[in-house]
Amino acid sequence: MSRPNTSAPELTATWRRRLKVAQGQEPADLVVAGGRVLDVFSEELFAADVAIADGVIAGVGRYENAHQRIDAAGAVVAPSFIDAHVHLESSLLWLPEYARVVLPHGTGAVVTDPHEMANVCGLPGVEAMRRAARDLPLRIAFTAPSCVPASEHESPGATFGVAEIEAMLAWPETVGLGELMNFPGLLSGSEDVAAKLAASAGRRRDGHAPGLSGTALQAYAGSGMGSDHESTHLDEAREKLRAGLMVMLREGSSEKNVRELLPLVTDATYPRCCFASDDRDPHDLLHKGHVDDILRTAIAAGLAPLRAIRMATWNAASHWGLRGLGAVAPGYQANLVLLDDLQRVTVRATLYRGQVVAQAGACIAALAETAPPDGLKATVNIAPVTRADLRVPAATTDAVELIPDQIVTRHVSVTPRVSGNEALADPERDLLKLVCVERHHATGRVGVGFVRGFGLRHGALASSIAHDAHNIVAVGVDDDDVLTAINAVTDAQGGLAVVAAGELRAFLALPLAGILSDRPAREVADAYGRLEATARELGSRLDSPFGQLAFLALSVIPEARVTDRGFLRVGS
Amino acid sequence: MSRPNTSAPELTATWRRRLKVAQGQEPADLVVAGGRVLDVFSEELFAADVAIADGVIAGVGRYENAHQRIDAAGAVVAPSFIDAHVHLESSLLWLPEYARVVLPHGTGAVVTDPHEMANVCGLPGVEAMRRAARDLPLRIAFTAPSCVPASEHESPGATFGVAEIEAMLAWPETVGLGELMNFPGLLSGSEDVAAKLAASAGRRRDGHAPGLSGTALQAYAGSGMGSDHESTHLDEAREKLRAGLMVMLREGSSEKNVRELLPLVTDATYPRCCFASDDRDPHDLLHKGHVDDILRTAIAAGLAPLRAIRMATWNAASHWGLRGLGAVAPGYQANLVLLDDLQRVTVRATLYRGQVVAQAGACIAALAETAPPDGLKATVNIAPVTRADLRVPAATTDAVELIPDQIVTRHVSVTPRVSGNEALADPERDLLKLVCVERHHATGRVGVGFVRGFGLRHGALASSIAHDAHNIVAVGVDDDDVLTAINAVTDAQGGLAVVAAGELRAFLALPLAGILSDRPAREVADAYGRLEATARELGSRLDSPFGQLAFLALSVIPEARVTDRGFLRVGS
Repeated sequence: MSRPNTSAPELTATWRRRLKVAQGQEPADLVVAGGRVLDVFSEELFAADVAIADGVIAGVGRYENAHQRIDAAGAVVAPSFIDAHVHLESSLLWLPEYARVVLPHGTGAVVTDPHEMANVCGLPGVEAMRRAARDLPLRIAFTAPSCVPASEHESPGATFGVAEIEAMLAWPETVGLGELMNFPGLLSGSEDVAAKLAASAGRRRDGHAPGLSGTALQAYAGSGMGSDHESTHLDEAREKLRAGLMVMLREGSSEKNVRELLPLVTDATYPRCCFASDDRDPHDLLHKGHVDDILRTAIAAGLAPLRAIRMATWNAASHWGLRGLGAVAPGYQANLVLLDDLQRVTVRATLYRGQVVAQAGACIAALAETAPPDGLKATVNIAPVTRADLRVPAATTDAVELIPDQIVTRHVSVTPRVSGNEALADPERDLLKLVCVERHHATGRVGVGFVRGFGLRHGALASSIAHDAHNIVAVGVDDDDVLTAINAVTDAQGGLAVVAAGELRAFLALPLAGILSDRPAREVADAYGRLEATARELGSRLDSPFGQLAFLALSVIPEARVTDRGFLRVGS
Repeated sequence: MSRPNTSAPELTATWRRRLKVAQGQEPADLVVAGGRVLDVFSEELFAADVAIADGVIAGVGRYENAHQRIDAAGAVVAPSFIDAHVHLESSLLWLPEYARVVLPHGTGAVVTDPHEMANVCGLPGVEAMRRAARDLPLRIAFTAPSCVPASEHESPGATFGVAEIEAMLAWPETVGLGELMNFPGLLSGSEDVAAKLAASAGRRRDGHAPGLSGTALQAYAGSGMGSDHESTHLDEAREKLRAGLMVMLREGSSEKNVRELLPLVTDATYPRCCFASDDRDPHDLLHKGHVDDILRTAIAAGLAPLRAIRMATWNAASHWGLRGLGAVAPGYQANLVLLDDLQRVTVRATLYRGQVVAQAGACIAALAETAPPDGLKATVNIAPVTRADLRVPAATTDAVELIPDQIVTRHVSVTPRVSGNEALADPERDLLKLVCVERHHATGRVGVGFVRGFGLRHGALASSIAHDAHNIVAVGVDDDDVLTAINAVTDAQGGLAVVAAGELRAFLALPLAGILSDRPAREVADAYGRLEATARELGSRLDSPFGQLAFLALSVIPEARVTDRGFLRVGS
């Protein structure tokens, strides 16, 4: 049950007015007239008007009495879409700009774990996001980051402990505990996890358990986890669903699981499935889309459009307890999309609380200024990196191997080219240097290893987006280029850089916490597009080179990583 | 998401133990071994053991390490069943005796609206039920009665206002506001309903809207109602489901809607459907069953057993937010049924929190003494009723017409037999007197009218169970027999009576609030069976004559009733 109870005493007048509008006795603020309503409860379309009063749906039926009417002829009127698990920071956009990009794609709500921000700026950073979210025409629900740092192998700028979790869980905007990535800590009953579970007693808890199965999965799920978005294989997702986890089918920029997992969704299982983007870059958001794009992917792969939309609306809302979201029915918020084509999920208009906020692909809502608080700036605090820091011992045999479109990696053994006592990158065999530089506390720690699958033939990339600690991660053929890229990122107090032959070929400054831009969405998307294109010009065959690079220091995803503390095997 | 978060600090030790049991590192308290587990998330059966620690499922899989094992070979291991809406008082049993009857039928939880007790004894009566529920091996969740009195046409012993509702909503046992029967009050925005909606802001609310449709249904559902169990027609149920109400398919003793409504349940709609008994008499509970009997009815009518059980477990639990109930999965309470036959829903054993509480049709749990608190006794306070009170004016043409197996009635116009200025009962035309005597405050109010469809050829029935005010209701051919029956009920401080030719033919005392017995379940069921059989011997063709009689004074069910204030048309 997910209908809002708008009947606190101060709302009684609103309720009485809505009763009258519902019964045709008073004019609605707005009637969306003549469309076909998508009923998420029975997966049917039916011709009806939607009468709206004070931002809430008063009635669905035949309504003539209205101050304003929108002609929805030829359109399907559906609830706006919900992303069940996303890190907004992956958009590189400050929140109003995020809204500007996703509203035209029909997004009405997101459940976001702000753990990127938390890793850099802690609770104050997350509070800044909360303030920025408050007046947006987009429902932004938060989960409280549970794993900052992601593990003891990471070195973030801030920590987010029980006190910060408790502070955040007390917000009305917070719907539960964020993804509990530290499953080894959980499985061993660690003090840290025990304290965080205690702090979130009675609350929803998001899971994150890539590859977990068997008795370990039983122990993990049985600890009160509610969901998981990390399945990459069908059998894995089946086992998680059976263990009681809500399965979030993920389709991000660099982690694409919908096609593989779609056979999971049957008449018997769909109530336990929804969609999540997890991480989408600004170029994808602008040009491919958001939840609408995930829906297109699922529908193209054979899922019925009405069912797909039900999963992206009601299922996500009811799982997270987002009252008043996810259905076109009386008492629900008038958060709607008008769709011209169900199969292609073409959004004609998006409404938020009864206001048209996007139409014909453009955001028309008045959004807050994009200027974010100064407190998020100047977060890069780094010891100078030298060529000597990038040396790899000759005896090294461990390497990370990428899997295209996945954030899981393989651990492989390699025999690098050697010069003296130093192992070298070897673009002929696609063996590149992977570097992670601690950048919060100027410790001078630099981890170096090898990565296969990136495909660069020349140059280097560097990024101050490096999940989850957001140190500076770089990949490259040439150590000088790697240094130049790292320095460019450092000088800008955060950013993404492509360097070749000593020259900065493409760059995007990320001055907010070193992970977000302060520029308009289109400008950021264009710059991001250029970065990715330039990386591909240097030989990368990856669909999202910066997207994949950003995960290569994440210590909680199997099988191999390089953090500022060096090469790391995960989950073995 | 409906998994319990058993991780408050004091539970950390329990959690750590469960982690070890889940991972096979410590022995389980109990392993239910070798059965086929019913997975409510994917409607599948799979061979697995269920390992239990401290009453909670630690893991589902292969488990050898256990202090105790139960052989479940040949059985299906399912979650125990949940009745989504029931008035326990209809069983005529005090709570421990209720548990004794329903546990062997596989019931694990009920959501109960104690509004019968509230009508007679107010909050103290309901508090007595709460205390009696506390240690039972049956999860009894309460809703706070919203409509006591049911309407201004009824005269109960006590009222249950906003203060009582607020007191009850503060209990951890209370899951929401009870069925809001006063839909006319809601639709007009009455002060009373406004105050009760405000008191329950943010809480689940049970609905009750027989026959409501169109804009009135939109207004009702849009006021934050979550469910409805009053659909008697398929189209009605379809419209309610579309309006966002969880549809509870009801199958009680005198209100049987499952066969009619079952076509509602499709692959697209089943997540929005569950089952409710609403009112089941003790004879039915003992001999036909409880939710298991509803399941048999649904399965016999064509519903797939796994889906039916999913609706009676997970769907009900998740709708009501009953955390930890409704699934056989890690972290859920070990509230299980072992079924020998899925099609016939034959219960081999019932477990509650990992303890076997019923097997082979018998309750084996140690239950509290049945003796209820003295404060519930001696509630009948009546002015003597005379023959003159039973007179009906000659000009009377209104009558109530019963519909077998339904609690809705028809309003019909009749031409009674007349003697002088008095209209008379006429058994030849099945036109009987229907009487309602105020019995709480000795006001002397007696309402009299006619009823058709009861079928008595002789004698009279009287009952101090008369929803919802629980005055004394009687039906009869002969005024003297009616008086005798009413007096028998009065003398016993509550009861059910069958009288013919001046003689008490069958009787059951109900000394607790005038609506419950203080005797063991089997004795009550036997007496109830005799009462019904005797009524049928007098000519009634009804399946449940006392069941139907009990609703003939209920002022909130269309179309016609007789209360202590006289004949009443409802909903016209």
